[in-house]
Amino acid sequence: MTPQPNPQLGAAVKAADRAHVFHSWSAQELIDPPAVAGAEGSYFWDYDGNRYLDFTSGLVFTNIGYQHPKVVAAIQAQAATMTTFAPAFAVEARSEAARLIAERTPGDLDKIFFTNAGADAVEHAVRMARLHTGRTKVLSAYRSYHGGTQQAINLTGDPRRWASDSGSAGVVRFWAPFLYRSRFYAENERQECERALQHLEDTIVFEGPQTVAAIILETIPGTAGIMTPPPGYLAGVREICDRYGIVFILDEVMAGFGRTGKWFAVDHFEGVVPDLMTFAKGVNSGYVPLGGVAISGAVAETFARRPYPGGLTYSGHPLACAAAVATINVMEDEGVVENAARLGADVIGPGLADLAERHPSVGEVRGLGMFWALELVRNRETREPLVPYNATGEANAPMAAFGAAAKKHGLWPFINMNRTHVVPPCTLTEAEAKEGLAALDAALTEADAHVA
Amino acid sequence: MTPQPNPQLGAAVKAADRAHVFHSWSAQELIDPPAVAGAEGSYFWDYDGNRYLDFTSGLVFTNIGYQHPKVVAAIQAQAATMTTFAPAFAVEARSEAARLIAERTPGDLDKIFFTNAGADAVEHAVRMARLHTGRTKVLSAYRSYHGGTQQAINLTGDPRRWASDSGSAGVVRFWAPFLYRSRFYAENERQECERALQHLEDTIVFEGPQTVAAIILETIPGTAGIMTPPPGYLAGVREICDRYGIVFILDEVMAGFGRTGKWFAVDHFEGVVPDLMTFAKGVNSGYVPLGGVAISGAVAETFARRPYPGGLTYSGHPLACAAAVATINVMEDEGVVENAARLGADVIGPGLADLAERHPSVGEVRGLGMFWALELVRNRETREPLVPYNATGEANAPMAAFGAAAKKHGLWPFINMNRTHVVPPCTLTEAEAKEGLAALDAALTEADAHVA
Ligand SMILES: Cc1ncc(COP(=O)(O)O)c(C=O)c1O
Ligand SMILES: Cc1ncc(COP(=O)(O)O)c(C=O)c1O
Repeated sequence: MTPQPNPQLGAAVKAADRAHVFHSWSAQELIDPPAVAGAEGSYFWDYDGNRYLDFTSGLVFTNIGYQHPKVVAAIQAQAATMTTFAPAFAVEARSEAARLIAERTPGDLDKIFFTNAGADAVEHAVRMARLHTGRTKVLSAYRSYHGGTQQAINLTGDPRRWASDSGSAGVVRFWAPFLYRSRFYAENERQECERALQHLEDTIVFEGPQTVAAIILETIPGTAGIMTPPPGYLAGVREICDRYGIVFILDEVMAGFGRTGKWFAVDHFEGVVPDLMTFAKGVNSGYVPLGGVAISGAVAETFARRPYPGGLTYSGHPLACAAAVATINVMEDEGVVENAARLGADVIGPGLADLAERHPSVGEVRGLGMFWALELVRNRETREPLVPYNATGEANAPMAAFGAAAKKHGLWPFINMNRTHVVPPCTLTEAEAKEGLAALDAALTEADAHVA
Repeated sequence: MTPQPNPQLGAAVKAADRAHVFHSWSAQELIDPPAVAGAEGSYFWDYDGNRYLDFTSGLVFTNIGYQHPKVVAAIQAQAATMTTFAPAFAVEARSEAARLIAERTPGDLDKIFFTNAGADAVEHAVRMARLHTGRTKVLSAYRSYHGGTQQAINLTGDPRRWASDSGSAGVVRFWAPFLYRSRFYAENERQECERALQHLEDTIVFEGPQTVAAIILETIPGTAGIMTPPPGYLAGVREICDRYGIVFILDEVMAGFGRTGKWFAVDHFEGVVPDLMTFAKGVNSGYVPLGGVAISGAVAETFARRPYPGGLTYSGHPLACAAAVATINVMEDEGVVENAARLGADVIGPGLADLAERHPSVGEVRGLGMFWALELVRNRETREPLVPYNATGEANAPMAAFGAAAKKHGLWPFINMNRTHVVPPCTLTEAEAKEGLAALDAALTEADAHVA
């Protein structure tokens, strides 16, 4: 369904936006936010009648697509009965959401602390780790994103941290494995894995193990480039954490809830269970703001008879929790996770590999499920990125041209530095996947023009 | 409407809660969260058929009461059309919410940065202030609460900070005026005001004005005790900020949106306009998580051509914004702010004054609108609190007994340390106000038993 164009309303929406909405990560006078009129499934449209296939899932959160009728109905039903209630009470939707999430989280991550989104989930996970261990330092990886609040941005390993970085108090950064741009002079995955673990352990030993509260990692780093860790890496981190009494935090805000073709990305790594796992986004496809921390028995025990000193007004918000219950049930009933796995393996993966063969600008294709990155390069041998790290303006022109071309072909692409990510809803159909691949094909021709 | 009791469902809800929900600010095994079955207007009820008049507004957020039919309908309508959308776009509900808020905020606070709630609003306000000034220190008051994330809790001046306090990096605390427990040996409001301003300026001068980015104050401190600042204090702070180039942040997360009988608490202080103002809670009565920062022209200008380095996935969430639009319109159409002012002045204020006369445990009554505190004491002369600062267990027994008595009389009270706050919905009726005052009357007899 694409309703009649209504450019007049679109102009009014935009005018009020420009007058009063302050946008994130932006220079307010240098942006021109497109006005969106509606959205359904894998598509959205503007007020001029342009319709786009959304290969971004918003900011990688609408895992069940836009406006799933069952989840919309569940939100409406919950709104009719109990829209909101304070966190100190037991509420049906809250209890049921916690139960459904705990049922799916690995190992003994059976207690759920609800937050409003990803950043505050990370904030609270870090607090729990510090209090559980009585230590302060947290180790986090370069090439990571953990959120926009002060503690979360301080943990973040991408340039969005810089402006707020007053010296990284309490945070120590390390390099996680990433063979395509190895920091360890590794020639294969096994070597990358071994050396990355050695580097992590060296860092801990030289920082002083007894000063390290936690290691936080995105199970599969998302915004920073969708780098699936090599086999053995996360198990190795788990082992190091156990050896030094360090809390292992996995951030599944982006990778969780079906994105990778399993309920959680960590399910791809047999036997690995973190002590704390953060989630948000896919838990209810962002239909209502919700995030949280899944907590192991050992960490929960620390706060069994001693208060956990943290909270928020909307912890376990009933409307958000009802949306989570409906989303999880829809994902289960409609095989959404399986769809992501199958389409990733059978259609998107092979389709992107085919594009890589035909487009010299594609340096690497990597990913799984509905979670893929294309590394665009000027030169496949040197792997020089198509645009420099954190480029803006003229320096970023090749990626901007790629993006514009994709949109011209009806595809809304996810772009970060020299990469495009293919992160459509997990409910994508095969036909939609092919439509998107065709648009990418056309847009990559644009990128090819910049290959040396 | 109180539906049939259903203790069996209540037990199931509670069992799942105990198995899987990790509660804020609590020792998990020492709590017994009551199961709530439903809520409407100023009341909620449990699964055993007990109904309570809610003098807490949740955590002081349901300013329009529970389940307002027009706001419920607006949420349902928005859910049917556009539940969610990414922040980089212009969206009708987002534009309209920003417009309606900016229309009501004082002065030139005309740009709205949306967050999910109060803590992240404070986090972003502080970031804006630091980048706007190029300075780092933020001054905040003892007896304050600014949220549960690391930066916000670091700014907080109540014991909930202690467990997460690793040395208050970047924060300097000062004392705000509070005549009843004056830190300035003041004998009247004028003296308290003058001396509090002198103390603030002394602190700035000795910290080094050129190191101070911002002063953050709750316009009327909420959780910490509802202390309306004396006439001239906020104007004095504004003047000091101007003199030293310091950003003035007012936190209206609790006091805003009708709570004090005006749209914003700052409206009680003619001519005072902060540079940044945080809000949440009442903006949509917490029906959907939403908060934000209202930004002055000067601060917005800093980020006109230079990116604001902060954001969040759900900034300007359409469902949350639609709830804000409906809430603000309901408040306007139904005279909710006026109701809060009138009932506060004509019924609650006089009613509480009468209770104070008859109950020796009441040391002071203070407040306005639907925002009142009763300071309970052992001794009116010495003002010794009924329970010590931050008391727990046996030491807190008198307040626990007061709370239990209120509940026995059908009133759900807000209790913090030695105070009970009277913070019902701003839609309270006169009859409900009287019912609540009668229950308080009975409960205060319990407190009187502990008067020396
Ligand atoms: C891995 C990860 N952690 C945390 C966050 C922060 O989540 P939010 O924006 O909901 O605060 C994000 C957001 O993209 C993320 O991808
Ligand atoms: C004045 C004030 N600021 C900030 C907050 C934090 O808001 P939230 O719990 O929504 O993060 C609160 C919450 O009570 C508050 O009262």
